Amino acid sequence: MHHYVMEDSIDNVKNCLRDFPKEARELYLNETVPYLERPPSALQFYREWIGPNKPCIIRNAFDHWPALSKWNPTYLREAVGSKVISVAVTPNGYADAVLGDRFVMPEERQMTFSSLLDVIEGKVKSGGVFYVQKQCSNLTEELPELTEDIEPHIPWMSEALGKSPDAVNFWLGESRAVTSMHKDHYENLYCVVSGEKHFILLPPSDRPFIPYELYQPAVYSLKEDGSFEVVDEDNSEKVPWIPLDPLKPDLEKYPSYRLAKPLHCTVRAGEMLYLPSLWFHHVRQSHGCIAVNFWYDMEYDIKYNYFRLLESVAGAVGPL
Amino acid sequence: MHHYVMEDSIDNVKNCLRDFPKEARELYLNETVPYLERPPSALQFYREWIGPNKPCIIRNAFDHWPALSKWNPTYLREAVGSKVISVAVTPNGYADAVLGDRFVMPEERQMTFSSLLDVIEGKVKSGGVFYVQKQCSNLTEELPELTEDIEPHIPWMSEALGKSPDAVNFWLGESRAVTSMHKDHYENLYCVVSGEKHFILLPPSDRPFIPYELYQPAVYSLKEDGSFEVVDEDNSEKVPWIPLDPLKPDLEKYPSYRLAKPLHCTVRAGEMLYLPSLWFHHVRQSHGCIAVNFWYDMEYDIKYNYFRLLESVAGAVGPL
Repeated sequence: MHHYVMEDSIDNVKNCLRDFPKEARELYLNETVPYLERPPSALQFYREWIGPNKPCIIRNAFDHWPALSKWNPTYLREAVGSKVISVAVTPNGYADAVLGDRFVMPEERQMTFSSLLDVIEGKVKSGGVFYVQKQCSNLTEELPELTEDIEPHIPWMSEALGKSPDAVNFWLGESRAVTSMHKDHYENLYCVVSGEKHFILLPPSDRPFIPYELYQPAVYSLKEDGSFEVVDEDNSEKVPWIPLDPLKPDLEKYPSYRLAKPLHCTVRAGEMLYLPSLWFHHVRQSHGCIAVNFWYDMEYDIKYNYFRLLESVAGAVGPL
Repeated sequence: MHHYVMEDSIDNVKNCLRDFPKEARELYLNETVPYLERPPSALQFYREWIGPNKPCIIRNAFDHWPALSKWNPTYLREAVGSKVISVAVTPNGYADAVLGDRFVMPEERQMTFSSLLDVIEGKVKSGGVFYVQKQCSNLTEELPELTEDIEPHIPWMSEALGKSPDAVNFWLGESRAVTSMHKDHYENLYCVVSGEKHFILLPPSDRPFIPYELYQPAVYSLKEDGSFEVVDEDNSEKVPWIPLDPLKPDLEKYPSYRLAKPLHCTVRAGEMLYLPSLWFHHVRQSHGCIAVNFWYDMEYDIKYNYFRLLESVAGAVGPL
């Protein structure tokens, strides 16, 4: 009898974890990512989007950036063609993703911006998929010549959060380059300068339906014959990562993902996505898409505290 | 073996519920209620207090209210002495509180403001404890003559929340009148005009340590001999309420309350308490203390959604 009660309680907790994301959608989440036709005031943005942790796409937010009209291959070759940048290279487009029982990171190749453009424009044939995706404020660190074509921050966002961005990142990649599903500890403003980005978004409340496993870290390494090998990072601790691919989820293996409700959105040139902290996201792009994103450190306060509770309870009861 | 795993899981969930309030304190809660020397901007108040759901005491926030100098018994008798108001009367000061297996509400007595002042000032001896505590915007509804001595809302709070208060309440009570521990679905600005209020506050994250039970609703009713009887409200559903008295908690009966960390604060004349939504509070006051509070409806969004998860998981696993 005692044991029966215990088992019943675990089922009750599992029901709580199933009801919670449903109630999130009933209470405050949108079924699609809404558009704002212009940037809001700092207070309004805080109250309506940052506070409730809801994504939106903002139009006409960076029309005044010279980058919007200037950043084409010819201009970029002139302005930064000889600069050496870090490029993530993988055999299949999957950088920082699960492969078998490994978490595989890309080869980080140093190359000039011109030679990257040669690959993107198809002028040079190259083994592997190339993606400028280094998230260490690579725009200001590696390509400072381009900073005058944008703004160093988003004024109403900096005002809303009362701080400056931690990082301004530059993104340029091939259409095969994919960012596997993950979440960041940042409030993210993602500005598409040319082409388009395709996002699959899942709210933090869907965490109970998202599998995490521990993987041995490894990196892709280019062999002399031009093929890639996977090399384990010795002495590295195992990394928790999401094995599920939202483009073709394995529902036999992860049946509770059926209950997740991913939002799909496309962010086009001139549009800005507000991607709230702790939202899971998977990203693809049109070939040669250029984007700039601003990472503002998130607050580790009540919402983070609650998210940790959600994660720990989900971990304690196991798969739903 | 299977059953053992289940039992283990429940213990793990209980540990999550114990760790969560501890982490709340480590991450973002204060050990005491901090003071702001002047009202902040709307955005700053939203970002630093409303968003993270943290209480504070604000000084110099309503210095310009004529009420601060005018609201003494002589003036009040002149201005509203003949007005009839609703007064909560109880034999012991406990209105809306657990008594045995009942949830007992006060007698709601209609009386003139002058006759209430006679009781408060000790000019008339009266059985029972009197407290003006009706939370139906009784200031604007019952005492509109007094509204010109205050402001109809708190401008920076209305700006922060993008809305007007739902209710403006007037409070005047005896020192024996106690408000038992409960929470409200409001962002609350509590302005002490004269005397002082003593608050015991518990964050929503301490919910796992706070007992709730279901009680038969009843009301105090004055008998002809001047004593009170408790009369059940027939056809009323049972009411969930907190049986625990934070002034003398029964730790034998509710041992996990040892893990709660109540904050004690005194709000003095001229000071304003920001009491965030869903914070548990227990209130006493100096004899004849006058206060005005503004209730702004809370947002039923991510924090509410998470609080409901916390409540449901705590309910599923039972007492810690």
